[in-house]
Amino acid sequence: MNYPSKVIEKAINELAALPGIGKKTAMRLALHILKQPIENAVGLGEALIALRKEVKYCKNCHNISDSDLCNICINPRRDSQTICVVEDIKDVIAIESTNQFNGVYHVLGGIINPLMGVAPSQLNIDSLIEKVKESDCKEVIFAFSASIEGDTTAFYISKKLTGTAVRISSIARGIPIGLDLEYTDEITLGRSLLNRTIIQTVQSD
Amino acid sequence: MNYPSKVIEKAINELAALPGIGKKTAMRLALHILKQPIENAVGLGEALIALRKEVKYCKNCHNISDSDLCNICINPRRDSQTICVVEDIKDVIAIESTNQFNGVYHVLGGIINPLMGVAPSQLNIDSLIEKVKESDCKEVIFAFSASIEGDTTAFYISKKLTGTAVRISSIARGIPIGLDLEYTDEITLGRSLLNRTIIQTVQSD
Repeated sequence: MNYPSKVIEKAINELAALPGIGKKTAMRLALHILKQPIENAVGLGEALIALRKEVKYCKNCHNISDSDLCNICINPRRDSQTICVVEDIKDVIAIESTNQFNGVYHVLGGIINPLMGVAPSQLNIDSLIEKVKESDCKEVIFAFSASIEGDTTAFYISKKLTGTAVRISSIARGIPIGLDLEYTDEITLGRSLLNRTIIQTVQSD
Repeated sequence: MNYPSKVIEKAINELAALPGIGKKTAMRLALHILKQPIENAVGLGEALIALRKEVKYCKNCHNISDSDLCNICINPRRDSQTICVVEDIKDVIAIESTNQFNGVYHVLGGIINPLMGVAPSQLNIDSLIEKVKESDCKEVIFAFSASIEGDTTAFYISKKLTGTAVRISSIARGIPIGLDLEYTDEITLGRSLLNRTIIQTVQSD
């Protein structure tokens, strides 16, 4: 496509390089930026540069952070004996937004995926094993997506933790809240039957 | 939502201020930028700032441009006697991509819309009238969206041009290429019947 100006062409190409943004959306965004006050464009541009340049990673859990240790790791009210192992930073944000977890995290930075060439050595697994063995950790919770890669990673780390006095668990698989049974895939439905929750046990006379 | 870092929170908020981008998409984009080389983030950020700071508007047609006059206006091979009047810069880009128009443009910067408070005085209409009257312009083509506002704007400018020896036309309304008749709305279908194209006239003996 021919653009009337080199600066808009460059901006459109840069925006269209982002995932899920095509040329048409990029053009719409560029024209929107043109119509906004100059501070907005500068704010957006500088925020994106700062994001990449200034972000740090927590030395303990590999979560993103503003300093050497993240807000969660330095918070004395969090239970550092319960470590939730996740694939990515966005999983930390998702779990934090539930307000149901008071432990700490460990971000692997990916998931074991031989087909995509992701080996265990490329992930933050060694530092997790070390942390669990050297600290007074009581439970490791795997919070991975329900996939073969997630199961593989959970299995690999479990094996590595054999012999430690640590409870290992995984987040529950089952029917999501609000989803009708008839629209649930058979694997999820099958697993949710296998891992059913006991509501009442048989009372002996 | 609680973000683990101030810089990512700022970047997500800035991205989510763009049209059509929500918090979830903004987070996905921010995490994508984090995983890219630092040059990509700097390139994107600087391109967006440059877009807003460096872009100029053509003094003749109000299209965006790298210099005082745009590439189309200074091109001697374009027919400057045919002026296509459009609402916005994106319409110029859309028409240019058809390769069917060899004239020049005039960007109004909006469309007359009393309900949204857009009056003719806020648009580049006076400069268009002046240009048409003072130059050797032969035809003015309105290329507006098929809406009441588009028709109003075309009518308003036509009135202003009464008395000039200029042909005034509008792009054809009709059935889009590839659309089945049965799925066309009745107004479009009705108009396309009224404005039918003659294929062969009756030949007299």
